[in-house]
Parts: sequence; structure tokens; C-alpha cells
Amino acid sequence: MTSSAMTELEKAIETIVDVFFKYSTREGDQATLTTGEFKELATAQLPNLMKTQKYPIMRDLDKNGDGKVSFQEFVKLVAAILRTGNPSFSE
Amino acid sequence: MTSSAMTELEKAIETIVDVFFKYSTREGDQATLTTGEFKELATAQLPNLMKTQKYPIMRDLDKNGDGKVSFQEFVKLVAAILRTGNPSFSE
Repeated sequence: MTSSAMTELEKAIETIVDVFFKYSTREGDQATLTTGEFKELATAQLPNLMKTQKYPIMRDLDKNGDGKVSFQEFVKLVAAILRTGNPSFSE
Repeated sequence: MTSSAMTELEKAIETIVDVFFKYSTREGDQATLTTGEFKELATAQLPNLMKTQKYPIMRDLDKNGDGKVSFQEFVKLVAAILRTGNPSFSE
């Protein structure tokens, strides 16, 4: 299905998946974020949220303590941001 | 923050919030989806996923059985779709 045929919501969900894999494939295991990859993603993609530290940081996300953030663990960060209702991305 | 200043990931997250409220404000309680509003959202925004019925439908989402889907319950649907890894939106 071409991206033009996708709906607004489908594109948004697909973007979340794409952003994760844009960073997870930079080094090491292609399907997980290393600490460095997570920092790059968070700094580039969630600049204001990370400054406010309202959201789980790497240690909280890395539930199984393997030093990597899996896609499932990343989904928890996205859900936490969504759960704040109307996450404002302004400072 | 203007939407142009938002990052790819922030825009995707904001879109998920916007889509929910686009439908939840159509009738009844502005902050929840009635059965009708949920059907409209799912049919318009998640046409293929709903056909495959792989995802929780209204009864599963409406955890507290109040006949309405709250934003928190909607986030669970989005997380469930994300958790399938690479949700393909094609038929």
C-alpha cells in the first residue's frame, strides 16, 4: 500500500516504527537501540520532552537491563508520552 | 511550538492525539469515543486493520465497560498495533 493510500493515523503509526528503525540500524543489533542510538533518537526527535525529563529515560525503558532498548520497550515510551493526554512539545 | 518546528516523531504522536479528538468531539462526552465515534474512527482511519480483526475491538478496548473509549484505552489500541512490530497497513 503506497504511503499516499495510508490514512493519517496509519501514517503516524508507520512514522513511529520508521523513526525507531532509522536509529536502531546505526550500530550493533539492528532491532534494538544501543544507549548511543537512544540518545541520538531522543535528542533529535524528542528534544523538548527529554529536557523536561518527564518521560522515562534509558534506565527506565531498558526493563530487562540488557543495555539496549527493544521496539517493545520503545513503544512504552511512546505510550507514556501519549498518556499525558496532550503532550505539548513546546518548551 | 508551530507544527513546522516539531520533529517527525513529535508530529506523529501529535497526529495520534488529534485523530482521537477529531472523533471524540463529534457527540456526547468530548473526551471519550462513543461506540459510534469509535466505529467511524476505526473505519476511516484503520480500514485494513479492522478488517483483519487482529486488533482489540470496542468491547476489548472498553476495559471499564462504560460503553465509551477513553484516550487511555485508545492508547492501548495504538500500542497494540505498534507492538505487532511492522504493522502492515496493506490488505
